[in-house]
Amino acid sequence: MSARVVDPGQLAAEFRHTLRREIAALPEPLRLVGVIAGPHGAARTYAEYTRKGCEDIGVQFALQNVERLEAEAAIRKANADANVHGILVYYPVFGTEQDRYVRDLVDPTKDVEGLHSFWSRCLYENRRFYDAAGTKKAILPCTPLAILKLLEAAGVFDPTAARPLEGRRVVVFNRSEVVGRPLASMLSNDGAEVISFDVDGPQFFSPSRPPIVKETSIDRAAALANADVIVTGVPSRSFERITAREIAKGAVCVNFSTFANFDGDITEKASVFIPRVGPMTVTMALRNTLRLYHNTRA
Amino acid sequence: MSARVVDPGQLAAEFRHTLRREIAALPEPLRLVGVIAGPHGAARTYAEYTRKGCEDIGVQFALQNVERLEAEAAIRKANADANVHGILVYYPVFGTEQDRYVRDLVDPTKDVEGLHSFWSRCLYENRRFYDAAGTKKAILPCTPLAILKLLEAAGVFDPTAARPLEGRRVVVFNRSEVVGRPLASMLSNDGAEVISFDVDGPQFFSPSRPPIVKETSIDRAAALANADVIVTGVPSRSFERITAREIAKGAVCVNFSTFANFDGDITEKASVFIPRVGPMTVTMALRNTLRLYHNTRA
Repeated sequence: MSARVVDPGQLAAEFRHTLRREIAALPEPLRLVGVIAGPHGAARTYAEYTRKGCEDIGVQFALQNVERLEAEAAIRKANADANVHGILVYYPVFGTEQDRYVRDLVDPTKDVEGLHSFWSRCLYENRRFYDAAGTKKAILPCTPLAILKLLEAAGVFDPTAARPLEGRRVVVFNRSEVVGRPLASMLSNDGAEVISFDVDGPQFFSPSRPPIVKETSIDRAAALANADVIVTGVPSRSFERITAREIAKGAVCVNFSTFANFDGDITEKASVFIPRVGPMTVTMALRNTLRLYHNTRA
Repeated sequence: MSARVVDPGQLAAEFRHTLRREIAALPEPLRLVGVIAGPHGAARTYAEYTRKGCEDIGVQFALQNVERLEAEAAIRKANADANVHGILVYYPVFGTEQDRYVRDLVDPTKDVEGLHSFWSRCLYENRRFYDAAGTKKAILPCTPLAILKLLEAAGVFDPTAARPLEGRRVVVFNRSEVVGRPLASMLSNDGAEVISFDVDGPQFFSPSRPPIVKETSIDRAAALANADVIVTGVPSRSFERITAREIAKGAVCVNFSTFANFDGDITEKASVFIPRVGPMTVTMALRNTLRLYHNTRA
């Protein structure tokens, strides 16, 4: 057996194809503002991918190159501009805890990253809609959403089911506020039993309602041996790569780190291997832009 | 000349004397809930000081000892309890960026620390009241507020003036989101010209309206030589202590770090030396509790 290796670029292209058609049908141009401070390499790359994605689907992208102390004014200006439908801030801006303050300056109804504390609250409280009528869907953070869409495309679950991941055991290595914790929460909201590993120990995200998170004493070996899906995002060379020997036959393996977190032999035993997520992340930001547009005009 | 050394304990006792009288006159008991997770030493000490302060002024203090994953539920329970007027969470809870999420779970109208992003926004936008009628004063973070009150008591400024710190030059070493940045902002909102030092470089907090913060190239020597007030909060032994030779004659020196950031000779040249702030921080949390009570009943 050899794993099917899924290219996120192909799925992203399919999503962009749909987005292009929907955006062309809008009564006005969709406008996204990017705010980038400083010369940070990875942020520049992400901004460049955003520009290409926007060009591809017909979104007007205006990238503001600012000094870090000008980011706040740029965000406020974009917040106030009725012709701007989405805002994407490229981090780090300060590279300190001040970035959390910057993040929350973005008007949540223009936050295409879905990382404003307003959206985090919706997610962690498993509220899918943010209006009383239940017509306006909450925005989900781009990378966790990208991973869910990749799993769906890989046939891991049926998205039309009420609890699409019911009974699935998922392991996530990474519990950052940007990807790992929201991802674990989204998976368990959809019915999965999730073991979350990070430097401060493993936690169990129960699919119970309301959501419950507990400390657990499970170790890596036991968690991996029992997992249907394994998602890694450890940004470190010192992470001991996950090998075929550690996983169950037919497991689905996803890596969203820029480092290889799986050993090359993983494809011998996994059913699906998704080695990177990046192109889908950008595409989900564009999809969120369209969703925000529809939400404010609903 | 030898500096007057100000004991924050004495000023704190004066504030508590006033608070005791005001609290005794309330129609119901004032109740403060503390939430502490884990065995963290400094947090335990802060909680113990809170208990003593509450006993001294007649506030009912209920300290919840919880596991870190139980902190959220404890906060939500206290938020929902109409008989709880204030909530004080002792950090670290997780010791990760998740603590920022925990902080914002506290209902801002019960946040005695004044660190909820709702209050940070008020402060950084220089909004003194948070209701349209201008009757409900915004809550200020405890340690910066304690430092302002100590400077006032030391005769540094007249609090009844419209711009009490107009023309004063202040240097602050520390730009954390908890103390240094809000402090620099409060000082410049009151008219001071503030140079803020931290590991990522010096910044100038202008007293202009609206507030403006700029990068500056000023160095430590020039900033210190011209400062009327010097506030330090560097939690490191490797910080080169500020000596008498570096400061202007008659400068007011305040240290809020648990490390000595001034050399012992500072009292030879300073007019006022405030070596620690701690007792005033706890007292300002109690004062905020009373203010929150009045705000919700105004």
